[in-house]
Amino acid sequence: MRIVVVGLGAAGLWSAISARMKDSSADIYAFCDEKYFTYSRCGLPFVIGGEILRFNDLIITSEDILKRMRINFKLNCRVTDVVKDTVYYDSENGSGQLKFDSLILATGSKPFIPPIKGVNLTNVFTLRTIDDGAKILNTLNSTKRSIIIGAGAIGLEVAEALTRRGLEVKIVELLPRVLPALLDEDMAKIVQKRLESNGVSLILGRGVDEIYGSGKVEGVAVGDENFQCDMVIVATGVRPNVDLAKNIGVNLGVTGGIKTSKLMETNIEGVFAAGDCAETVHLVNGKPFLPMLGTSAYRQGKVAGFNAAGGSRIFPGSLGSTVLKVFGVEIGSTGLTVERAVKEGFKVVVGKVRWYTKAEYYPTHEKINVKLVFDGESGRIIGGQIVGGEDVAQRVNLLAASIGWGMKVEDLCNIDTCYSPPVADTIEPIVRASELAFRKFKR
Amino acid sequence: MRIVVVGLGAAGLWSAISARMKDSSADIYAFCDEKYFTYSRCGLPFVIGGEILRFNDLIITSEDILKRMRINFKLNCRVTDVVKDTVYYDSENGSGQLKFDSLILATGSKPFIPPIKGVNLTNVFTLRTIDDGAKILNTLNSTKRSIIIGAGAIGLEVAEALTRRGLEVKIVELLPRVLPALLDEDMAKIVQKRLESNGVSLILGRGVDEIYGSGKVEGVAVGDENFQCDMVIVATGVRPNVDLAKNIGVNLGVTGGIKTSKLMETNIEGVFAAGDCAETVHLVNGKPFLPMLGTSAYRQGKVAGFNAAGGSRIFPGSLGSTVLKVFGVEIGSTGLTVERAVKEGFKVVVGKVRWYTKAEYYPTHEKINVKLVFDGESGRIIGGQIVGGEDVAQRVNLLAASIGWGMKVEDLCNIDTCYSPPVADTIEPIVRASELAFRKFKR
Repeated sequence: MRIVVVGLGAAGLWSAISARMKDSSADIYAFCDEKYFTYSRCGLPFVIGGEILRFNDLIITSEDILKRMRINFKLNCRVTDVVKDTVYYDSENGSGQLKFDSLILATGSKPFIPPIKGVNLTNVFTLRTIDDGAKILNTLNSTKRSIIIGAGAIGLEVAEALTRRGLEVKIVELLPRVLPALLDEDMAKIVQKRLESNGVSLILGRGVDEIYGSGKVEGVAVGDENFQCDMVIVATGVRPNVDLAKNIGVNLGVTGGIKTSKLMETNIEGVFAAGDCAETVHLVNGKPFLPMLGTSAYRQGKVAGFNAAGGSRIFPGSLGSTVLKVFGVEIGSTGLTVERAVKEGFKVVVGKVRWYTKAEYYPTHEKINVKLVFDGESGRIIGGQIVGGEDVAQRVNLLAASIGWGMKVEDLCNIDTCYSPPVADTIEPIVRASELAFRKFKR
Repeated sequence: MRIVVVGLGAAGLWSAISARMKDSSADIYAFCDEKYFTYSRCGLPFVIGGEILRFNDLIITSEDILKRMRINFKLNCRVTDVVKDTVYYDSENGSGQLKFDSLILATGSKPFIPPIKGVNLTNVFTLRTIDDGAKILNTLNSTKRSIIIGAGAIGLEVAEALTRRGLEVKIVELLPRVLPALLDEDMAKIVQKRLESNGVSLILGRGVDEIYGSGKVEGVAVGDENFQCDMVIVATGVRPNVDLAKNIGVNLGVTGGIKTSKLMETNIEGVFAAGDCAETVHLVNGKPFLPMLGTSAYRQGKVAGFNAAGGSRIFPGSLGSTVLKVFGVEIGSTGLTVERAVKEGFKVVVGKVRWYTKAEYYPTHEKINVKLVFDGESGRIIGGQIVGGEDVAQRVNLLAASIGWGMKVEDLCNIDTCYSPPVADTIEPIVRASELAFRKFKR
């Protein structure tokens, strides 16, 4: 049996590994159109910021590792077409073709560049690849004032990185708050305060009308205001790479991603998809969803690879669980915000606390803000946001598990949590927030 | 309606608070036989170690707080008897009686002192109360060599505290490893190495036959060996305080604790029990269980108080979830160890990894050991142990939730975990361990 994987990002790599785990004798091929082995895109801002010293440190696999797993690979090689059971590819060393039994599309995504005048000026960057990152890093010494378009996770991480490098940083965000997909306004405000206290200026609820300059960027126009700068980072999200899929008759979904079944299979039997290019469902409402996260890419790849090798594992869907750390503040979110839940017709019950991460008397405790969103009809948890404190990633994981498993407010109140003064409080803040919500339900 | 609570530890306090939340007009009384308001017993080792400066810092409530919640209290006051709907009490200011509609027994526990010759010598201590702690603290300047009997959580925390204070520390444990109720041998060994590298000597698998000395302790005899010391801490666990319960006809269970329903009610209608004195069930196997933890005390108190005030909330049971931090290593455990699961007849499947807490390339990542225990028949998770790393408490909470909610290995593989290089790895170690276990199940 031969399995061909198109793409060697998180989804492609994990598809190949998972196929190998399932079938020790399969012939596995992975094609990658970049010149690097799989690397952590999420690590790029930290090389720009200097916490990580080299872009090469982000490369998480190698020729050796892939060979040991008997995964054949071709870097710098584009798959140009698929006809029936054959992929056609192009590389510097010429073109070729390869027959397959199962195909996995893990073609990833590319930055979305809004149609603004001037986006092609010099020193206007996106941050998606090592090469993008290297360009930004090379420009730092000759720049002083930066403007970031978009206040999503990448925008904020880059804001910290550039601040660390001594640049002046302004963020322009079309929506009225930072991290609009992850946080409601009350929680976003805590983050905004932290950004501003670290010297980042925020221009919220307004869009960039033009990037201007002659050859090189000189500023951006927001309404009738001009803000001078010598670097612009466009961080307005990504779009799935679906050209190949479209060309070969693979159906796309309403989100623009490749439509997949719970087996991560497309409409064409034996053709699977995983990662940023693959549409899945949201675990709260079952609606089509494009999580666009490394974690989802890993999980979808795991399932797609396993099934491409003859298994039948299920990918239940995603919640878009996200965590980031900006200027020392940890921020986490999973499921629906109140804003989104209300839009989707939920009658929402909220439990919100500002409490401690450890026993209040223990010297290193920190304050943490926890906001949980419950469906007022069923009592089911449908979302959670955490800002501040510590151990936020693991708290998000607990919330994601409870949402994914359909747990209700009482279930969260009853978790047999652990405690010891130097590491936790007797009453976990998530339980406190759940208790507050619990009281709002009629009993 | 009048609700009387006997005891003002975590269970008593939370019974009273929860009763108040349920019924804003009830008359609530709490009796406490110590002279302090509710304090954190778990904090005692950290005052001895010097991380916390004063025992008073551990007191988590006050006259003001209780008055604001309209909880009447009597400190230094023993409830001596209950006849039908009346409690009888004794204090320095004389005795009295009080009628009640609901009664909550939150009488806590006392140290178990093994019947060893010499346990009454001077400088032989237990650590249960602030007064116990003060005695130990007052003795530190005149002691050099300490022996701790028992390598449970308190034993290890005290070992670190005494080491910090410059004492030589030896631990004698009857069972062949440290934390025998929490960890299997493979995981306990990691902790033992850490203890020894910090100068703590371990005498495992052997019991203390005698504590000797004339008046003051001079050493302990273990088999035919004598170990000299000038202080002994007996940390061999606690036993429930059930004298009052027995006297008034409340039934005890096989564990020696007060038998309770899921409403935390005893065999006598209107009489509830919560905390260390109250037997509950183990969430894995439904068997009678005495968790003896502050967290369980809080949760049982919450339910007992609510129901004593006319509610009907359920306490589903406990897993004995525990976390501690000793010499910088975080240790967590919940549910059954492999040893115990096998004893209980489970056909066990284990998933075990040593992995990173953050992206491997991120400079502050730490190594973490995760061991998960699954029921080989149903695939259900029945236990978890974590040693090392960081954020261990929150990981234990996730495992406790998954065990409590009856989750299976696939459910853990599918958790929509979050990730960002400075705070988490793409693949959460718990998911990695689950994947390893998943592969061992026939599919």
